[in-house]
Amino acid sequence: LAKYPWVSLVGPLKVIESVLRGIAQVMFVNNPLSGLIMLLGLLIGNLSAGVGAVAASLVAILVAKVLNFPDEVISAGLTNFSPVLVGTVIPALYPVFFHAPLSVPVWLYLLATSAFSVVVFAGLGNLLGLHKIPAYTLPFNVATSITFLCMRAAGYALPAPEAATASNDTSLLQGDEEEVEWDRVLMGTLLSVGQVWAVESVPCSVLILVGAFLCSPILTLACFLGGAIGTFTSLVVSSAPYSAVYSGVWGYNGFLAGGAIAFFMIPTGRNLFLASVNAVFATFIMAALLPVFVANQLPVFTFPFCLGSVLMLAATIAAAPENLVASPSTPE
Amino acid sequence: LAKYPWVSLVGPLKVIESVLRGIAQVMFVNNPLSGLIMLLGLLIGNLSAGVGAVAASLVAILVAKVLNFPDEVISAGLTNFSPVLVGTVIPALYPVFFHAPLSVPVWLYLLATSAFSVVVFAGLGNLLGLHKIPAYTLPFNVATSITFLCMRAAGYALPAPEAATASNDTSLLQGDEEEVEWDRVLMGTLLSVGQVWAVESVPCSVLILVGAFLCSPILTLACFLGGAIGTFTSLVVSSAPYSAVYSGVWGYNGFLAGGAIAFFMIPTGRNLFLASVNAVFATFIMAALLPVFVANQLPVFTFPFCLGSVLMLAATIAAAPENLVASPSTPE
Amino acid sequence: LAKYPWVSLVGPLKVIESVLRGIAQVMFVNNPLSGLIMLLGLLIGNLSAGVGAVAASLVAILVAKVLNFPDEVISAGLTNFSPVLVGTVIPALYPVFFHAPLSVPVWLYLLATSAFSVVVFAGLGNLLGLHKIPAYTLPFNVATSITFLCMRAAGYALPAPEAATASNDTSLLQGDEEEVEWDRVLMGTLLSVGQVWAVESVPCSVLILVGAFLCSPILTLACFLGGAIGTFTSLVVSSAPYSAVYSGVWGYNGFLAGGAIAFFMIPTGRNLFLASVNAVFATFIMAALLPVFVANQLPVFTFPFCLGSVLMLAATIAAAPENLVASPSTPE
Repeated sequence: LAKYPWVSLVGPLKVIESVLRGIAQVMFVNNPLSGLIMLLGLLIGNLSAGVGAVAASLVAILVAKVLNFPDEVISAGLTNFSPVLVGTVIPALYPVFFHAPLSVPVWLYLLATSAFSVVVFAGLGNLLGLHKIPAYTLPFNVATSITFLCMRAAGYALPAPEAATASNDTSLLQGDEEEVEWDRVLMGTLLSVGQVWAVESVPCSVLILVGAFLCSPILTLACFLGGAIGTFTSLVVSSAPYSAVYSGVWGYNGFLAGGAIAFFMIPTGRNLFLASVNAVFATFIMAALLPVFVANQLPVFTFPFCLGSVLMLAATIAAAPENLVASPSTPE
Repeated sequence: LAKYPWVSLVGPLKVIESVLRGIAQVMFVNNPLSGLIMLLGLLIGNLSAGVGAVAASLVAILVAKVLNFPDEVISAGLTNFSPVLVGTVIPALYPVFFHAPLSVPVWLYLLATSAFSVVVFAGLGNLLGLHKIPAYTLPFNVATSITFLCMRAAGYALPAPEAATASNDTSLLQGDEEEVEWDRVLMGTLLSVGQVWAVESVPCSVLILVGAFLCSPILTLACFLGGAIGTFTSLVVSSAPYSAVYSGVWGYNGFLAGGAIAFFMIPTGRNLFLASVNAVFATFIMAALLPVFVANQLPVFTFPFCLGSVLMLAATIAAAPENLVASPSTPE
Repeated sequence: LAKYPWVSLVGPLKVIESVLRGIAQVMFVNNPLSGLIMLLGLLIGNLSAGVGAVAASLVAILVAKVLNFPDEVISAGLTNFSPVLVGTVIPALYPVFFHAPLSVPVWLYLLATSAFSVVVFAGLGNLLGLHKIPAYTLPFNVATSITFLCMRAAGYALPAPEAATASNDTSLLQGDEEEVEWDRVLMGTLLSVGQVWAVESVPCSVLILVGAFLCSPILTLACFLGGAIGTFTSLVVSSAPYSAVYSGVWGYNGFLAGGAIAFFMIPTGRNLFLASVNAVFATFIMAALLPVFVANQLPVFTFPFCLGSVLMLAATIAAAPENLVASPSTPE
């Protein structure tokens, strides 16, 4: 299906296919049908995030054309997956971090961020390409971090409402005695799927898993396993209260970390083990980066996944280059 | 003129030419006459900065000789342009950030910083050279950041005078109602030229523009356009009061960002567009880095320009390598 | 001795030799006897650190085997020297930074950190290898920083005891008038040897020097010179009270920086000069990084040495590639 002859189709269809593939590429799936199901999930989970993903993708395709990207890279959605995340994460996290509703300037920032992320994708791709290592979603992370800091500098952030702070304090006080609620940890594992796109919604997570499973069961299992490992590891490297664990925030880096190894390496038992280690690694890095990012009032985005996976892939390439798949599509 | 036969001249003249070319190289101009006019501008705008530029250059030439740099690199001023910035920025910004007058130990730090910046230039040049990407003024940024942090650690900083803090508070209170004064924004665009060397002075800016224009009108226009774009973009990504905008502080990264693309790429309409995008990009990055640097009581120097331009050049090379000029001298 | 035929020995002996070589490799010495003497020093100076070094090395050898590292890299101890530092630094610094005694979870973190540092070693080795530059102890720095931040996030840190804070305040007040006690500066130079492993102990430092001297007198002298330069330079870039100088904390980056150049370059007068410059450079970087790391409640580890030496080695390779030793073993 990945080789479906779509070049012959007319322009708008090509654009739609590129947009859909870009949505699925976030979790390494190169398939428009999977992308369509995932987009449905996003729209159900958070309407703004779904719209943002499409808008950001359209800008990205335009910029990619201006930058003369090869046609097959654009149509495979490779130039769009970072913009897709820009388009979902800004609408989803802006209200949380800036205590303000979405406004027109924020949408303009979103489109500019999408454009910048394509430039960063091209730049980092060139730099890391020499080492045969992908930049993963680093372009999204870099561009969105810059934008969040810009919007804060431009005075977009409203003061945090009193109530939220107060309830936080209370839960912190209760923290030390809190028991881990294992059913909510399991729910957190499921929610971590949608949290990759910063959407916390069970139907969204389920639709994303279904979409991915249609295209590549092994990859989906590796991702899900990574998300579970990340969620459970986070109980060790964070402290109570575990509300962030229950909402899936601690699992999405592990989810991507598991997929990243499964996608670029031949699926053997040893590489599955490495994927698990990578998920633990990403969760450790997340725990480490969190306080540094909080000090700058930034979310950690998917930086932990990117940094861990770049190192892990570089490590495994160095040790055993024959393990790398020649042309990564799906493990099957 | 760039190919002027100067190798046959005697030692001191060679050194003078290298110093002058190094001053002009800050804005990509390889011409001793331009450098002389710019040095005049610097001396008029800020005497200490002008003297510092020359002193730092002399140390840099010495270090470059010890490190066995090729003769043509030294004489083109390529080893000196980071030291030139070290020499102008430390005398210009030290009194502002440390609330203390220049002293002998500060000058010794300046000379050591100049020497280190040459080492960093050689090191980064080697690392980035593999990717065919210049390090721009990163050596200056790295070396001067280290020195500023060192001087603070060594207890050089005096407490900020009360008056300055008070007046800042007042202007912050008035901030929300402040109107943008467009004539002062235009003046800020002009002042941003001198701010590249951290000198805020109209005659200095004019002399620098004249010097650069003599050698390369296209490059000068690209830089000036970048400075204007940066200054106007900053109105979007910063909040009132706009005193920093009016003094040119927000434009110098755009100024360099515009020039960086114009210098390394063939001057077509498309590349002029990319130069403009790069100037916007640099200004976004500046807004993002500012709060992080302020937390460490550091100026952002030209980090925004360097980071943005490295990525942008890497992006454009990846997309269209034929656009890169084979041997960058001047666009003409 | 470096070429001692050990491949024929049985498994456990191979492991022991790899562990011992790994300990000595921290200061570029590839010799099991030196490693044994150094291990003795570590055990005398800080029993937990010595045990930690061995435990971390054993985990590292296992991980290196899983990652399919070539046999000669493992047996030379190259995969172990970062883990050795993980094993000595965590037991030595954990009680200081977390105000809590070592516990079983901390030891488990130690073993996990050791495993991660091997992955980082492989990853960075692959990335920097293209530039023919070693990653030095960066893997140790990255892995241990992450772990310290993780342990803090997981609530391991107890509040600092009042007494310590109070006595600090007192010494800070006396600071401005404090005279430099030169005999204690000299003692700090000696203590800086052990501080490479985060062990502050005269017998430990002496045993380490003896062990290294047996294998390579020139390298040992270059290291010791670097440590002395670092310790004396720190008097310029830090402010009173100088208790950290006296305890050797300011010298260990210079110690390693001196050795790093002596080890990878042909031992000429010019390169000895560069080694000295590198030691000054590392100390400047340390002064610069210290406040940034303190803000995140982290020690600077050996980041200053790594960053300085990567740049300095890249600089010298660029300038004069013939200076690099083809196959670095010992200068003799």
